Parts: sequence; C-alpha cells; structure tokens
Amino acid sequence: MSEASPILVPKGFRASAVKAGIKPSGGLDLAMLVADVPCSAAGTFTTNRVCAAPVRWCRPLIPSDSMRAVVVNAGNANAATGAQGEANVRRTAEVAAGLVGCEPNQVLIASTGVIGHQLPMDRLEAGLNAAAPGLSTDPESFRTAAQAILTTDTRTKTIARTVDGASLFGMAKGAAMIGPRMATMLAFLTTDARIAPADLQAMLSEAVEESFNCLSVEGHTSTNDTVLLLASGLASDEPLRGDSLKAFGRELHDACQTLAQEMAADGEGSTHFITIDVEGCTDREEARTLARAVADSPLVKTAIHGADPNWGRIVSAAGYAGVPFEETQLSLWINGVCVYEQGTPTNFDAATLSTDLRANRAVHLRLLFARGPASIRFWTCDLTAEYVHLNADYTT
Amino acid sequence: MSEASPILVPKGFRASAVKAGIKPSGGLDLAMLVADVPCSAAGTFTTNRVCAAPVRWCRPLIPSDSMRAVVVNAGNANAATGAQGEANVRRTAEVAAGLVGCEPNQVLIASTGVIGHQLPMDRLEAGLNAAAPGLSTDPESFRTAAQAILTTDTRTKTIARTVDGASLFGMAKGAAMIGPRMATMLAFLTTDARIAPADLQAMLSEAVEESFNCLSVEGHTSTNDTVLLLASGLASDEPLRGDSLKAFGRELHDACQTLAQEMAADGEGSTHFITIDVEGCTDREEARTLARAVADSPLVKTAIHGADPNWGRIVSAAGYAGVPFEETQLSLWINGVCVYEQGTPTNFDAATLSTDLRANRAVHLRLLFARGPASIRFWTCDLTAEYVHLNADYTT
Repeated sequence: MSEASPILVPKGFRASAVKAGIKPSGGLDLAMLVADVPCSAAGTFTTNRVCAAPVRWCRPLIPSDSMRAVVVNAGNANAATGAQGEANVRRTAEVAAGLVGCEPNQVLIASTGVIGHQLPMDRLEAGLNAAAPGLSTDPESFRTAAQAILTTDTRTKTIARTVDGASLFGMAKGAAMIGPRMATMLAFLTTDARIAPADLQAMLSEAVEESFNCLSVEGHTSTNDTVLLLASGLASDEPLRGDSLKAFGRELHDACQTLAQEMAADGEGSTHFITIDVEGCTDREEARTLARAVADSPLVKTAIHGADPNWGRIVSAAGYAGVPFEETQLSLWINGVCVYEQGTPTNFDAATLSTDLRANRAVHLRLLFARGPASIRFWTCDLTAEYVHLNADYTT
Repeated sequence: MSEASPILVPKGFRASAVKAGIKPSGGLDLAMLVADVPCSAAGTFTTNRVCAAPVRWCRPLIPSDSMRAVVVNAGNANAATGAQGEANVRRTAEVAAGLVGCEPNQVLIASTGVIGHQLPMDRLEAGLNAAAPGLSTDPESFRTAAQAILTTDTRTKTIARTVDGASLFGMAKGAAMIGPRMATMLAFLTTDARIAPADLQAMLSEAVEESFNCLSVEGHTSTNDTVLLLASGLASDEPLRGDSLKAFGRELHDACQTLAQEMAADGEGSTHFITIDVEGCTDREEARTLARAVADSPLVKTAIHGADPNWGRIVSAAGYAGVPFEETQLSLWINGVCVYEQGTPTNFDAATLSTDLRANRAVHLRLLFARGPASIRFWTCDLTAEYVHLNADYTT
C-alpha cells in the first residue's frame, strides 16, 4: 500500500495544483479538477452537525448531471467559520467558474486543514488564477493534485481501474480526525464511464458504506468529510447498464476500499495497520458498532502498538459497544490464533504471538459471535506516542 | 486533590490489607473490609457485556440488609475467565466467610487488574488467612486497604465526611479503562448511618449518576466497575429520615464527585485535569452524550496536552455526538475565554490562552447550547505520550 497506483486519466478530465500559500509549510495546497463536459456527479458528506462551509455548498448540488469542476484546498478547513465562511466558499466557486467557463453551481468545493480560521481569500483567488493555465490531462498533473489535497498524510493515495473500456481514477487524503459515519474523509473519483446521476449516487453510496464507513483512526468524525465521484461519459455513447453497470460498481467498491485501507495504513504516527473482522452478528450495523468500539479503544490500540496480546481489552471493548451479547457467544482470534473461545480463555502461547505482532505491521483481529449471519470488515491503526506528539501542537 | 483526606472510620468497620503475591510487583494487593454487624448495602456495577466474575457474584446480593464483608484484590480482574473464574469467586467468598464468621452470601467481592487470567487461588487464600488477624478499626488499616486496591494509580483516593453524627468513609481506584456507563470503577464506601437498603440504593444510584458516570479517562468501560456502600447503622438507633436522610444524600453525592474527580486527575500519564460543563440542553442525557464525545476525543485531549487552544476539535467532537443541534446554537469557552459564539469564531488571543493552558493543570471547557434547561458537569484528563507508553506494554 505504500506505492501509489499508476494513474490512468479518464477521458474528459484535466487537473492542476499550485502552492497558494494557504499551508504554513508553503507546500502544494490548492488543486483543481476540471471536466471538459458536464458530468454526472455523486457525493457523500460528513454527518457532523458542525459541518464545513464547502460541505454546505456541495450538498444541495448533488447528485447532478452538469458538474464541471472540483476545487480543493488544504491547510484550512473553512469549518465553523460562520457567515464569512459561507461567503468565501461562494466566492471561490465564482472565481473558479469564471476560469472554467461555467456557472458557480457547476463547481464543487472541498477543504481540509485547521478548523475555525477564515480562508485567506486573496491567496486562494491568486492560486486559482495561477492553477487554471496549468490544467492538463497529463497523469503528472493528477499526481500533483493528489499531493495538494494532503495535510499530515505521509504519502499520496490514488487508485486507477479500468472496466469495460471505461477508466476510473480516485485520490484521497486522510491520516487523522478519521471516524467516518455515513460519510468519509476527502476522496475524489473521476470516470469516463457514462452513468446516470441516480445510478452513480446509488453505487457510490453503497461503496462508501463498505469502505470509508468501515474506517477509523481515532474515531473523531471530521467536519469536512467529502467523497465526490464525477463521470464524464466520454468512454461510450450509451450509459452503462446491467452487467456493465454492476462490473463498474464492483470496481468502484474495490477502489474505495483500497483508498480507505490506505488511510488507516497512513494513520498519524501509526506502526500497525489493523483489519478487524466481526462475524456472526444479527445485522451489519450491529457488526459495525462492535468493530468501531474495538477500533476506537485507546487501550486496544496501545496494546497492539506494544505488540501485547492483551486480548481482554478487545473483548471488553466489544462488551461496552451496546450490543446485548453473552460472553459465551464470543470467540476471538489475533493473527489467526484463537485466544478466547466461547467465553473462556485458551492456552495460547503469548510470547510467540507477541513476537508475531512485533514483526508484522499488519494485524488481523477476528471476533466471531453466535448471533446471526451478518459480518463486517473494518480498518484502523494503532495509537502511538508519535500520534500524541503530532496532535499536541497542531495550530499554535 | 493530591492529598488523601484524613480518615474517620465509621463505627462497626475494620480493615486489613496484605501483599498476597497477586501483583507481579509484589505490592499490597488484597484488602478486606469487615463489618461487625449485618449492614445495609447498596451497589452499582458495570454495564459491560463482558463482566467480571466478582460482578456476577455481587449483583444478585444487592441491595441487602445483611452484608458483612468486602474482599478486594488488585493485580487480576477475574474477568473473561469462564466457569473457572466463577468457581474462584465463590471459593473466595467461602474462605472469607469462614474467617469472618458469616455466610458466603454475606461477602461482597471485587477485583481489578489484567483481564483473562485465572486468579492464583493458593496465594489468594493464603492472603485472606494472613489478612484476617490484622483487621482493625485503626485509620491506618483503612489507608493501607486503600493502597491495596490500586493498580496504575499514582496515589490513594479516599474521602471522609460526617453528617448528623454519622460518618462516611470512601475509597476508590482508577486511572485508566475509565469510561463508566451506568456504573463505575471500584469505589467502596462505608458509613455508620442507619439507612434502609432501599433508601441506601436510591441515594447511591443518584450519587453515582452525577459523579462516576460523569467521568472518562479514555472511554473504555471496564469489565469490573463496582461501587459498594455499606451502612452499619451503629451511629444511631433510628434510621435516617427526612432532612437527615437528605443531608446524608448530599454528603454522599459530594463524596462520590470528589472521588470521581480524583480519578480523572490521576488519569494515566495525564498532565491536565479537564472539567467540562455542557449547558442549555434538552435533557441531562443529551448533555452527557455531548460531554462524553468531547471528553473521549483523542484530538481534543492531545490539543489540551499541547496547551493548544484548537477549539475546532472541541466543537467538531460535539458535532458528531449524535445530538441534532445547529452550529448557531453553540458557544464555547476555554478557561473562561469565549472562542466560539453562536456558530462564529471570536477574535480571542490564542497566544495568551495557550500560555494559560500551559501554566495550569486544571482546564475548564464550557459548551453552551440554546436547546433547553439541562446541563451536566463531566471530568476527564488529557492524552499524553506517557499514557501510550504505560499501555503499550501492560501484560507482557
């Protein structure tokens, strides 16, 4: 997961990115994705009650059959910024629309960075003016755009797939404040497949449900979570239907899962990438609730960081999730070793399992309940002193 | 909060503690509290579905008018230990009953320590036999008992109050795996007030609701949370009634709050003690939900550790709590400084506030909503690299 996928640019899209001076570091911080033709567009957004001005801007525009551009800035979330924040997002759309040659309500906007500060609009506008001439179909432009949307991420997160002559490209960011609930962190996907807005939205919502919504770094749901999928339709004259539509849905699903896994693997300061399978539940939401409780427990995360097979923390996290199971309904495996079987500890070799945890970055937890047929796969990372250091001094 | 209160021993109670060899450190790890007469007894217990064998033992015995003893061990939680764990707690009650001269079902039991290991019954039984001859009304015995119930706590947590000629003594432990929900960590209170079991239970439940249930270190609800209150009745011939009963309830309430605050202040590795006032909510449970989301956010906790007035993390944590408020209904104060007013950032002096946060261990957050009359006060601590170090290598 450490290498970004090769980029195949779907037909009809151009990208550009610049250093607009929004990030204090002076790095790339402003990206434009522009479509040559009006696109089908689908999206999912944060459920946080304190949601960013760009999220408020996008929500009423989605789904759509006429989107032309996405503008993303890093370094400032434009969240909890009141009426001024709303005015700034509108102004951003107006400037971008002028450069693209479309209406402001054909421009989608996303932001990420510190909450509660007003955007430096002079720099943002200058940045848009500087970025527009650089818009290009060159894969390198898309790679640069994928860099410009990052904050504390240590690497870009991109994905490229092809299906039935159409191609799909996605990029995402996220390494902390990751606790998506019915939404997710920033991810932008483009395709030249021809798909109607309603189909596109249904497929994206389903893919998000089983990818970004099965992800947590520390459980803190962001104010800015946004996933957007734009389809230019230039790969074919006819819209995808039947098996072709299903095949596209499977690739989209897989692409979103890969991006979600990359976020957990790049979790701030993390040393372990943790996959949690929760099986044998009455329904999928029950499984998700149990998985999230385990994934978000600082005690579980620190134990795994310490290569400590302290499985009592895992079963006790499941125990307070709010699901009314009995202990005798629960068995637990760590990296394939059964440590707790139907409510009773096993005689596993703790030293060997600890050595295994120390040697491998990837950790697998399997919680098997005897309540029903539903299951879920969930991803997270461990909690380290480095995470604390990174987050103890972020704004000041 | 760093100094334990002077101990006033309620009439009719004796205590003793020994080093039974259950803790690997070899420290004090087994305490007995014995009543000379059958006591009224009230209790509250964890709501974790994975609950310890001693919790399963106590639940059906409470409330009661005939309890004689409490046995507490540290170093082993006797949780997730299956049928063997149940047999071990029964055996502990039998041995203690023999020493006290009562029935096993007059003995309450609590354990704390690592989950999933069987108790070393030979050491425990030898420890009880060694502890019984030392039972004494001397305050020093109670102080030693308060030491024996600790795990990673850095100090004992005791409280003593008097009301209307009766005295109340309490001791508690807890520094991590603290996320009480309808229950709490270990706390043991004794009084010589004469109070009927039903009154005692009602008063304790109410006090717990506004003390231990307003507390979190990292939100991980323990398998062993137990609060017990024993009343010998030796302070008076007649049971407390009317104003006297109310006065006792107020002291109990205050004692529980003080012990809860001491746990947050002693949170593992913590450098800040955080008090969260959530006001203007539709009801108390809504206020608790909002307070808990803020208290349990690793991003809020690390920001405060870094003396960073990154208030966006606080309002965004409230935003994902599941309470359907509007941003314009929310204002926030940090240490008395308004940083966010009805959905809009203020022009506060971040440098001065950061200096204030760095200089003071105590932090006060006030979230004011415009939804109704209900409020809550909640306590937590910050998240530090030391917490991670302490928890990355606890069992191995």
